[in-house]
Amino acid sequence: MIEDIGKLRRTKWSSEVKASDKKVVLMGWVHEMRDLGGVKFFSLRDREGKIQVTFKKGVTDAKLVEKFKLLGKEFVVGVRGEVKANKMAPGGLEVMPSEVLILNTSDQQLPLDVTGKVPAELDTRLNARAIDLRRAEALAIFKVRDVVFTAIREFLEKEGFMEVQTSKIVKSGAEGGATLFPISYFEHEAFLSQSPQLYKEVLTSCFDKVYEIGALFRAEPSDTVRHISEFTGVDLEMAFADENDVMDVLENMFYYTLVQVKKRCKKELEVLGRDLKVPKPPYKRVTYDDALKMLAKVGRKIPWGEDIDRDSERVLGEKIKDPFFITYYPSKMKPFYIMPCEDDKKSRSFDFDYGNMELVSGGMRHHEKARLIKSLKDHGQDPGAFKEHTAAFGWGMPPHAGWGLGGDRLVMAIVGVKNVRECITFPRDLKRLTP
Amino acid sequence: MIEDIGKLRRTKWSSEVKASDKKVVLMGWVHEMRDLGGVKFFSLRDREGKIQVTFKKGVTDAKLVEKFKLLGKEFVVGVRGEVKANKMAPGGLEVMPSEVLILNTSDQQLPLDVTGKVPAELDTRLNARAIDLRRAEALAIFKVRDVVFTAIREFLEKEGFMEVQTSKIVKSGAEGGATLFPISYFEHEAFLSQSPQLYKEVLTSCFDKVYEIGALFRAEPSDTVRHISEFTGVDLEMAFADENDVMDVLENMFYYTLVQVKKRCKKELEVLGRDLKVPKPPYKRVTYDDALKMLAKVGRKIPWGEDIDRDSERVLGEKIKDPFFITYYPSKMKPFYIMPCEDDKKSRSFDFDYGNMELVSGGMRHHEKARLIKSLKDHGQDPGAFKEHTAAFGWGMPPHAGWGLGGDRLVMAIVGVKNVRECITFPRDLKRLTP
Repeated sequence: MIEDIGKLRRTKWSSEVKASDKKVVLMGWVHEMRDLGGVKFFSLRDREGKIQVTFKKGVTDAKLVEKFKLLGKEFVVGVRGEVKANKMAPGGLEVMPSEVLILNTSDQQLPLDVTGKVPAELDTRLNARAIDLRRAEALAIFKVRDVVFTAIREFLEKEGFMEVQTSKIVKSGAEGGATLFPISYFEHEAFLSQSPQLYKEVLTSCFDKVYEIGALFRAEPSDTVRHISEFTGVDLEMAFADENDVMDVLENMFYYTLVQVKKRCKKELEVLGRDLKVPKPPYKRVTYDDALKMLAKVGRKIPWGEDIDRDSERVLGEKIKDPFFITYYPSKMKPFYIMPCEDDKKSRSFDFDYGNMELVSGGMRHHEKARLIKSLKDHGQDPGAFKEHTAAFGWGMPPHAGWGLGGDRLVMAIVGVKNVRECITFPRDLKRLTP
Repeated sequence: MIEDIGKLRRTKWSSEVKASDKKVVLMGWVHEMRDLGGVKFFSLRDREGKIQVTFKKGVTDAKLVEKFKLLGKEFVVGVRGEVKANKMAPGGLEVMPSEVLILNTSDQQLPLDVTGKVPAELDTRLNARAIDLRRAEALAIFKVRDVVFTAIREFLEKEGFMEVQTSKIVKSGAEGGATLFPISYFEHEAFLSQSPQLYKEVLTSCFDKVYEIGALFRAEPSDTVRHISEFTGVDLEMAFADENDVMDVLENMFYYTLVQVKKRCKKELEVLGRDLKVPKPPYKRVTYDDALKMLAKVGRKIPWGEDIDRDSERVLGEKIKDPFFITYYPSKMKPFYIMPCEDDKKSRSFDFDYGNMELVSGGMRHHEKARLIKSLKDHGQDPGAFKEHTAAFGWGMPPHAGWGLGGDRLVMAIVGVKNVRECITFPRDLKRLTP
């Protein structure tokens, strides 16, 4: 029953079909079927939309009318036919087929309803992700995702940043041992990269302005809707710059990205019921000290040196308005590579919040070898374990600053979903499972 | 001695400076120094080039002349100054400084000479990669690399392919067990991804046309100049297409990429002494059978069913002219997911050769569940281990075809280097080490 595609090829996506087209070839899936006796039709779905294919007794070739009876939901079909205006059809158009190829069949019992009429739990959907990702909402999320990363690259390339691909198998972690995945690399001990931090810093001494978009790995100790053990990081590092310079780059990149999503993903935002606001930079930069004062005023006392919890961040977000920076955190809260302020207690660091989520961490880094080694010690690290890294700081390391952005979280915030798994998980994924 | 960058910022790259500029601020490294007594100068190097900074007794502020003596090779400096035409200076320009900041110092003994005047072995260079990547040739390679991947993305996005980021931590390998890196994923057994093959196939049933550029991992059993255990793969998969369609996409993408490198990397190709030819597609598609006949004619007999060795590929390359496809390999030589031809002995597969290297493997895939399961068995695999994968083939899998391209090898072939480590390795890399 399954037929060969032969030389038949799609001439248009369903969404591109116009009444004036006359002949078209469409390729897609049987989304829904109805048999009214003399008139039968199915809705052909492809990535870009749906269109009605109509079989009329006496008009359509009798053999094709017979073939209709063989079809089932999610069968894969190729249809050659003529476009007709029909006010009764969704979108005002229908295709009268002259050729129908059944390119593949489908199980009679599918684990999920693509039409979304029978809603399903997230777990069921992730278990049948190959079907789940055909739903209009899921498709919209991944199209927005594609535009987000494309826009980020466009912006950074235009700004003279060079994209690099650093190793994912590394000798030592950059962000502490708790979330490291150990791996056996032939006879060497190694880990999966948590961050390209050490690479990108050293690369500012070679390529000046660099960025990387790639997979990063953290053995997240608990299962939350915002954490996943494998994610797409956007990392940037810039020579001859300080924390303010890279905050400028970040907010302009962020703005450019939102503008592009708004422009290129109209249909997708509509499907997601999303009215995306595009606030113009500059965005507020609130110091950690001022943030604590603002919170104290509304009865939320946080002792200096402690983290601003998620609820307090939400309160700040409501007061300051999305998106915003919190700057100059206590040094002890930040990793060894962050440069302290002159008073040493505070650090030249920042976080960037949007959509009630911390999306970015960044700051100015140490570039003097002696100070970096001292900072390693102050942070309880063994400088010997970082010998190869610190060596490069004796070979002419420029002052530099940068940040790391959680790419999946950015997509999450833009499309407005609650669980990061909606924006990243693929069929058969292990990464959605954490302890 | 190390000074703070403060508010001083680069106004131009060295390569952008013109005589008409008057005032400029440059940021970079002390490349070479000369002290002729009354006139002292150093060459300031940044990512884009070099320019002479001249200190003249009686003209330059005496304090700056004193400061010159503190400088050393690879010191990091910021220079504010006036541009003057000077026929004696390289490039015909020099900068007369009014401000010089020493932003960082350098070890007196550097492990490598950035000027390249003292040549070094590859191993020495990789051990001091942070310096090695400042050499003009290394910089040129990584700039070409950036343009290659940017061009590929531009082309594929324009063609309606959606970029995806599939998991790098996977349950099972796609390319056989020999080159798998095992990893412990909490309580699950897992591996590092050798290829997004299984993901991308299933994703054609959701997103139709997909591609991915990302890290892939193969525990290469031996140390060769063309293999590395972590590399950047370019993977593409397309629904409602056959092997010829994806060969078309590949050759047009390849052509577009070469055109862009030729256009955007003039200076880099010059540095590399590379006269890049840009052959127009279509490229020759020679069947495996015909390739064997051609080889037999020049005395190279390869029994049907055996691989075409590297030397024979080189001979073919000389005869057919670069680049070219070899198509319809014996089924047994290809993995389980490749669709056989009607005669079953041959497969709808192809390889793509360029610069005496196999860059791409691809073909049409199985899309019928029963035939896929049979093929798994025929290839000695346990279909039970692929149950979650084959399930998706019962949910409406379209006919599909695709390919995987070794991104680093493509860069290697374009820039014309012999060891893939020149195009991918970063400071402190483990991945350059194989057994």
